[in-house]
Amino acid sequence: MSTTEPKRRGRRPQGADTKEALLTSAREVFAEQGYDGATVRAIAGNAGVDPAMVNHWFGGKEGLFTAAVQIPINPAEVICEVLDGPREQIGQRIIRRFVTAWDGVGGGQFAALIRSVAGNEQAVAMLREFVQNVLFNRLVAALGVDRGEMRVALCGSQLVGLGMARYVVRIEPLASADVDTVAATVGPNLQRYLIGDLDLA
Amino acid sequence: MSTTEPKRRGRRPQGADTKEALLTSAREVFAEQGYDGATVRAIAGNAGVDPAMVNHWFGGKEGLFTAAVQIPINPAEVICEVLDGPREQIGQRIIRRFVTAWDGVGGGQFAALIRSVAGNEQAVAMLREFVQNVLFNRLVAALGVDRGEMRVALCGSQLVGLGMARYVVRIEPLASADVDTVAATVGPNLQRYLIGDLDLA
Repeated sequence: MSTTEPKRRGRRPQGADTKEALLTSAREVFAEQGYDGATVRAIAGNAGVDPAMVNHWFGGKEGLFTAAVQIPINPAEVICEVLDGPREQIGQRIIRRFVTAWDGVGGGQFAALIRSVAGNEQAVAMLREFVQNVLFNRLVAALGVDRGEMRVALCGSQLVGLGMARYVVRIEPLASADVDTVAATVGPNLQRYLIGDLDLA
Repeated sequence: MSTTEPKRRGRRPQGADTKEALLTSAREVFAEQGYDGATVRAIAGNAGVDPAMVNHWFGGKEGLFTAAVQIPINPAEVICEVLDGPREQIGQRIIRRFVTAWDGVGGGQFAALIRSVAGNEQAVAMLREFVQNVLFNRLVAALGVDRGEMRVALCGSQLVGLGMARYVVRIEPLASADVDTVAATVGPNLQRYLIGDLDLA
């Protein structure tokens, strides 16, 4: 549609094309270089677009990444919210945020994420980058705990598993449980992964 | 190959056909009726095969189910092994068994399972049946704990998540950790789900 439409009709189709080109390029470059290695310049260059368009459409590298990975979570916002409150309830706050965000988009989007992850390496690399470098590494660094990498991986395993159980496999009563129940039952486990003793008692 | 081959050449191709027909039928009938509702008679009838062939090829309904769902675990054996030993280390024994089984088949089979689950409802129903009715319901019943259904769902979430993190998303250091490390770090969390206090402290 956009290619046949005359350009003088307005900026929108062109803008939408630019946005789409940046998202496609972002998925390629982030998957190849990782979140830290990928630069706005490289992504824009690969898309044949002015780097300023990244700020214009996505507010920067992180916004572009989040849009590209199609996860309904703003990492900076989540990290702020999660760290704001009693340290002994961080696990619960994360679960609450996770469930609210995915319930909000209907859960089907989580299944779509898993489908894409199961099907191709690029999506796997993107999800790994999101869980590790964009979300949990910063959180773990802010908490000042030991064995940070292992904690990040363990938290990732529980969150991905919770999403699978609630939205994909739909195991009851977890699939229909309200947010409070999920936070109360899963929260303490995430808490142990984040700041608890990881070795055997 | 099997249809063009003359029958007098031996039983094998015919046997393999019977086995395949039973597996296909099993996936349909189990997904529709659930593990408890599906009968050997119905599955064999749907495959156009003598019900005795189920015992012959799979040793019974459970063996057929396990083969159909393509999970490298013998539920009856696992339940026995897991219950045999100190109650306070059940979580660790389950993790140890889970990781050993999937590591043994190379992990790629777990990714294949997730791909099939993400792609169709039949596979979803099969996995749900396996986690709930074939494996964990029996385990939870044997342990005599309250809130059994929720415990089953929570255990399922952690095991599926561990498989995703280790074999699909491959988050390090969890992806390469040895069995002892995984059992020590994840085991206590499974333990809480199985026999711990599920409410907030």
